[in-house]
Amino acid sequence: MSELSKSSSYSFFDIVEKCDNYPYSDSAVSSSGLNDIPLLLDNDVKVGLLLPSTVKALKEYNRLKKPNPFIIEDKYVKFAAHLNTFEKRTEVVKQLFDTWREEKLFPALSGWRDELYPIYGDSENPTNVAFVMERCATPLFGVLTFGVHLNGYTRTEQGQLKMWIAKRAKTKPTWPGWLDNIVAGGIPYTLNVTESVVKEAMEEASLSMEIAEKAVPVSAISYFIATQKGLQPESQYIYDLEIPLDVEPKPLDGEVECFYLWDMDEVINHIKADEFKPNCALVVIDFLIRHSIIDPNNEPDYLNILSRIHRRLDFPTKAKSIK
Amino acid sequence: MSELSKSSSYSFFDIVEKCDNYPYSDSAVSSSGLNDIPLLLDNDVKVGLLLPSTVKALKEYNRLKKPNPFIIEDKYVKFAAHLNTFEKRTEVVKQLFDTWREEKLFPALSGWRDELYPIYGDSENPTNVAFVMERCATPLFGVLTFGVHLNGYTRTEQGQLKMWIAKRAKTKPTWPGWLDNIVAGGIPYTLNVTESVVKEAMEEASLSMEIAEKAVPVSAISYFIATQKGLQPESQYIYDLEIPLDVEPKPLDGEVECFYLWDMDEVINHIKADEFKPNCALVVIDFLIRHSIIDPNNEPDYLNILSRIHRRLDFPTKAKSIK
Repeated sequence: MSELSKSSSYSFFDIVEKCDNYPYSDSAVSSSGLNDIPLLLDNDVKVGLLLPSTVKALKEYNRLKKPNPFIIEDKYVKFAAHLNTFEKRTEVVKQLFDTWREEKLFPALSGWRDELYPIYGDSENPTNVAFVMERCATPLFGVLTFGVHLNGYTRTEQGQLKMWIAKRAKTKPTWPGWLDNIVAGGIPYTLNVTESVVKEAMEEASLSMEIAEKAVPVSAISYFIATQKGLQPESQYIYDLEIPLDVEPKPLDGEVECFYLWDMDEVINHIKADEFKPNCALVVIDFLIRHSIIDPNNEPDYLNILSRIHRRLDFPTKAKSIK
Repeated sequence: MSELSKSSSYSFFDIVEKCDNYPYSDSAVSSSGLNDIPLLLDNDVKVGLLLPSTVKALKEYNRLKKPNPFIIEDKYVKFAAHLNTFEKRTEVVKQLFDTWREEKLFPALSGWRDELYPIYGDSENPTNVAFVMERCATPLFGVLTFGVHLNGYTRTEQGQLKMWIAKRAKTKPTWPGWLDNIVAGGIPYTLNVTESVVKEAMEEASLSMEIAEKAVPVSAISYFIATQKGLQPESQYIYDLEIPLDVEPKPLDGEVECFYLWDMDEVINHIKADEFKPNCALVVIDFLIRHSIIDPNNEPDYLNILSRIHRRLDFPTKAKSIK
């Protein structure tokens, strides 16, 4: 490892813990103060987790609506029994967040995106989607969301591995100016994972479809991050793309300020200096493990890192049954 | 996927659940009947989990020894305060299992190996090892154990991926006749992970050191399996090795009956037919994910599989602090 990396102040595990920062229920270290309340579908499937502040606002909202859209008890909040279809749940949730947005009740809702995310858990529905909701509101419901990240790398003629890294535009509403993977985004309700990554690669990094389509799925990370906006259990599918030496990703849609091509020591140094958006650092750490750069003999937290970046999130996914 | 794979009866996730079969404490589905008792060091660090049958036998044993080696309460079993060094704990544990072996109290002890495994958790000790103990006794203490598995694969001249698979000898004390990775073994107390895999590759598969040394660390899996022998939280470091087309692994030490070279559809078919030793199937499933054969669009349980094969095990590892 180069001189640069030696001067860094964080371990890889420190960076993992910054992202996967929600307490584990079985951990003696961190079991304090879990006052968050599960959000259940009408069929009792747990789909989210609510902060006490959200529950309080929901009580206010619920009181004024007849019939009450939610059943609010000390131990859970549940969709009322009449909200038993995709359409009915989606409509009620839309009305709720439209109201809260107008009332400017939660800062999270100021970043409205007009982008719908699917919430899974309705085994009656052929696609298992219980409802869809506005992307920026998901931390208020603490629902599991899905995205896709792309590692863009090259190999020099001497076989040296290098990685393309994006610097987020200063105008981004979240994490402006932080480092990022070359492509990262949510998965729109209407696209599958591979279609999403190809679309984003063209929009965010000006890669041609011919190149973008060579991206291959290799992994996924899952973690649970609590931020000022709320609770965010997240899963990110990970793709790798070897970018030809004569191709350069270029900013296109204003999301990225510029791209850097760094050797792996430089990438590591910037991770350890805490300059990456936390979940993007995890995507690179996963790459470093798969490419034998982080290995069991040089990293005492090898196993802990792998477990923490693949956190079991106790919420439904596309798969029909609860695992 | 070929015709062969279509006739199979298990999903990948079914196979994962066969191996990671110990209940999760936070899961509504499986929280019933967790009567197992933590085993604590004298410094209160949890290092294992004891079945009620083991606690019962420990009470008997403890009653006859002065000073009592263990403090046995309803909620935990703990090393007595005077057992505060590596040497003292190791000696007490050796005496215990030597006695139980003589008394033929537990079937697990009939497979005595004279191989010492390290149990981590003593932050006073420079290596963090609290004590070492006989390998075959580890399921009785429910301590975390570590191994290393090697995926041996080739690429044909046409670029087709194939994998070498071992058939375990019919004389093996555990899982005789089941399918296995080409190399798999525990990590002796005296070797590091890479040294272990190179040694095992030479002993189990007759690979030359020149070839074995090209194995690269790429991943690790962790899971918690309960068997008739006891409780086994396990972590397996994973290495990949591309084996030249003109090299064939060959049985050497009697552990392996024969090696097969299969295309990936054949490998998948044998996994889904439940012919692999369960943890070896997980090692191959991890390979299939990293090599884009299992992908997010063809496997609805993609995320669930990744979380379950990287289970967070709430026991100390080589890393000094508890994570």
